[in-house]
Amino acid sequence: MNELIIAVAPMHALCKKSGAERVSEAAAKELAKVLEDIGVKISKEAFDYAVHAKRKTIKSEDIKIATRKVLGK
Amino acid sequence: MNELIIAVAPMHALCKKSGAERVSEAAAKELAKVLEDIGVKISKEAFDYAVHAKRKTIKSEDIKIATRKVLGK
Repeated sequence: MNELIIAVAPMHALCKKSGAERVSEAAAKELAKVLEDIGVKISKEAFDYAVHAKRKTIKSEDIKIATRKVLGK
Repeated sequence: MNELIIAVAPMHALCKKSGAERVSEAAAKELAKVLEDIGVKISKEAFDYAVHAKRKTIKSEDIKIATRKVLGK
């Protein structure tokens, strides 16, 4: 995955929210990549749930159940 | 968390990448929220690792180890 859908810039803000003073550009990119990978996994599961419910639209409930499944909670 | 750092708009693109035709606005918001929550958890862990290594800057290696810890891999 070379081009990310999730922007790198907000990752700096996210890390600063967690207490960090500085975040390297490589670290911000890594975090965007990690979150994008998880996001793709969750939305793939969510899509399966939507299809199973005979819908073409992913709804909030699909994301919720998919998140629990992907994160194993 | 009312205001999200991660933008909602790219979540539609993320879900479409996973095969979905349509994504409700509530679902896109839910996905942004979920990814932001995970991002905050990972960056908090990453910050702890940086501090432990006597650094003030979060580096890519901190994100990698924090991700493994948070996702339990």
